[in-house]
Amino acid sequence: MRARVFITPKKGVLDPQGKAVERSLHALGFAEAHDVHLGKYIELSIEGGDRAQAERRTDEMCRRLLANGVIEDYRFELQD
Amino acid sequence: MRARVFITPKKGVLDPQGKAVERSLHALGFAEAHDVHLGKYIELSIEGGDRAQAERRTDEMCRRLLANGVIEDYRFELQD
Repeated sequence: MRARVFITPKKGVLDPQGKAVERSLHALGFAEAHDVHLGKYIELSIEGGDRAQAERRTDEMCRRLLANGVIEDYRFELQD
Repeated sequence: MRARVFITPKKGVLDPQGKAVERSLHALGFAEAHDVHLGKYIELSIEGGDRAQAERRTDEMCRRLLANGVIEDYRFELQD
């Protein structure tokens, strides 16, 4: 099973990377770009187990390692 | 319109961050995690214009700034 994890800065947390990308986009002439947020995207394979187990384990991976719960939100999708 | 951009290392390009995350997952007891790849996830708002234009402009942003075409692939989704 393939898991896709999206990690984004929590609302209200400073996102200096996002701001820097937004400024660079404007400097390149993309004036229509706004509210840019930069996060992480992680793809991984989960071997064995059923969907419910993969979901539980992926959630645990996010909480224990992949995302920093203080400043980041996460969500993930599973695909057979 | 909201754009979600996913940037991943191209197949065959070394992904040391992905390898490091995979090792850490194994060390934490997540032996079922394999083939971990780390990429970037970018959310931004595109103001004005129709969907076709937003698609063209987002593609241009990816090529010119967000992704490094030599070592990274990108794809994106648009949402009204």
